[in-house]
Amino acid sequence: MGDVPRRGRRPTRGRAGLTSLRKTDMSTRTVLESKTKTVVMGFDEPFCVIGERINPSGRAKLNAELEVGDFSTVEKDALEQVACGAMVLDVNSGAVFKNKMAEDPRYADNNFVEPSLMKELVQRVQAITDVPLCIDSSVTGAIEAALEVVEGRPLINSTTGEEEKLEAILPLCGKHNLPVVAISNDETGISEDPDVRFEVAKKIVERAADYGVPAHDIVVDPLVMPVGAMATAGQQVFTLVRRLREELGVNTTCGASNISFGLPHRHGINAAFLPMAIGAGMTSAIMNPVRAVEMEAIRAANFLTNHDANGSEWIRFSRVLDAVGEGQTFAEASQAARASGGGRGGREGRRRRRA
Amino acid sequence: MGDVPRRGRRPTRGRAGLTSLRKTDMSTRTVLESKTKTVVMGFDEPFCVIGERINPSGRAKLNAELEVGDFSTVEKDALEQVACGAMVLDVNSGAVFKNKMAEDPRYADNNFVEPSLMKELVQRVQAITDVPLCIDSSVTGAIEAALEVVEGRPLINSTTGEEEKLEAILPLCGKHNLPVVAISNDETGISEDPDVRFEVAKKIVERAADYGVPAHDIVVDPLVMPVGAMATAGQQVFTLVRRLREELGVNTTCGASNISFGLPHRHGINAAFLPMAIGAGMTSAIMNPVRAVEMEAIRAANFLTNHDANGSEWIRFSRVLDAVGEGQTFAEASQAARASGGGRGGREGRRRRRA
Repeated sequence: MGDVPRRGRRPTRGRAGLTSLRKTDMSTRTVLESKTKTVVMGFDEPFCVIGERINPSGRAKLNAELEVGDFSTVEKDALEQVACGAMVLDVNSGAVFKNKMAEDPRYADNNFVEPSLMKELVQRVQAITDVPLCIDSSVTGAIEAALEVVEGRPLINSTTGEEEKLEAILPLCGKHNLPVVAISNDETGISEDPDVRFEVAKKIVERAADYGVPAHDIVVDPLVMPVGAMATAGQQVFTLVRRLREELGVNTTCGASNISFGLPHRHGINAAFLPMAIGAGMTSAIMNPVRAVEMEAIRAANFLTNHDANGSEWIRFSRVLDAVGEGQTFAEASQAARASGGGRGGREGRRRRRA
Repeated sequence: MGDVPRRGRRPTRGRAGLTSLRKTDMSTRTVLESKTKTVVMGFDEPFCVIGERINPSGRAKLNAELEVGDFSTVEKDALEQVACGAMVLDVNSGAVFKNKMAEDPRYADNNFVEPSLMKELVQRVQAITDVPLCIDSSVTGAIEAALEVVEGRPLINSTTGEEEKLEAILPLCGKHNLPVVAISNDETGISEDPDVRFEVAKKIVERAADYGVPAHDIVVDPLVMPVGAMATAGQQVFTLVRRLREELGVNTTCGASNISFGLPHRHGINAAFLPMAIGAGMTSAIMNPVRAVEMEAIRAANFLTNHDANGSEWIRFSRVLDAVGEGQTFAEASQAARASGGGRGGREGRRRRRA
């Protein structure tokens, strides 16, 4: 696996100690790295936006392009997302190659398709961007293939509480000292009871410790239900995020836009959900950063949680909004700001302050 | 005082009991009434929007109108605010009558100007709207004048922790069994230390009990500082609101737009601040409801805190947003929805469910 530093295993935390974590345990820092950049996810860090767009699921055009080896949309999506504020890029290899499948039945099996595709995706994306990656596949072989070529310290996406998944993913994370997304469902499916989802997350954290993966390298997805279908969906997430943070000491993530599934004016729901989740302690989301409304909500929430010193990020971002007001798309305005240096000062500024 | 029901004094809570309140003490219900409507402010209620626009401070045109007895802007503001979602209307009588002042020095004294003006404002507003009022003046005589004509159970705005204020306002609230806004500053000014502001609020709650005003009739304003000037301003409010709710069992309010003072794209900051404050437990704000961005954030937050059964309010509101998208102003679209019955179902629906 490329340049991933092989750090010594940190001492694992005993099960009895899980609930004794201090509320703002500063050790909960999930460190992600590209070849040149470090992104820290943590309670005392700006919200970590993980760009979700490099994902063929449900994107017929992208599937067709990937099938013929055309990575132009992937590269465009990578650059746009980073310009718009993605701090990490999710790379999902779950493509369906319809034409190849008709000719060669092996292509009907994602265990066959994904490893080579994932390797190519990772290489393409890291060749043109400098952010850490989130390696996203349900195929363990695809994750292993990514690890052969990825530079830095990626986030592995994901394990669930299912026994088979735990046994496939956790040893891999332990061996390579990698952080992992833990989705709080198991063999019984997704429970509508948030206490059950909490217990699944707790089980994963405990099992991970057995493989040498500490709690601060586990990013729990408490699972966001659509509020249109379940009236308590928002409250469940806010309560769960707080418990996960206070009782397990873990970072959290979610598929944020699920909350508004099926509703009109979805972005209005998303733009309130994200600040509320951040206020409850959520530290990242896997989301589309090429949306001004949601990114505005996140940047404002960063400012309001004192993660934007002097509001300098907000002021830079407000210039992008000005350009959007003058007719540019958000992606265009973000890329123009980045090209002129205005979009990069923040992250580099933070690196400098830490140095 | 018009139709205000004279309820018997409820037993006051001893000081020792203040910190023993359960986290979600359902007894914290601040009941406001107009002649025909009841609005309940509480932890298990939709966020209470108190419309701020009937206020001559800094509005030269409105001052000039009021000086010549022209109440057309007041009436327009009253109707627009209610149509846009105000559940309570603040009525502030702090006008400056420049021309009259030049002719008659008595007009330089607000103790002279405000009582009669307040009485007229209250009568005008309650003649054309049906929401409870928030009687807002620094002149005790103006509040007393309002109480001669106001229908229902208004909110008194406000006392501070200043001795002179406490002694002027609390006996009035105790005598008439009225709820009161408590602003957490005292003779020493506004402390930048949130713990000091909490102590001021606690002192007011304790003093109020001595006058028979229970904690559930005190709506604390923890004071919102501009985040552009004080990086911890947002966090201070979220922490204070949670403490005020959990330790004192009181409802809270704020001048929400203070948070974004001096910043570009203020409404983006406000629209993240409001959901975050609601998530922390804030139960009302004194704000301009004739702003789609902020009202969208509040309606989404109501939905996400399970205070919008089936999302019916959100769906109604989204139709207003559709009309705004087609070129109407938010006030026009809200008034049209209200005229067609679409804007009123929510409150009436809630009343029906309670009945």
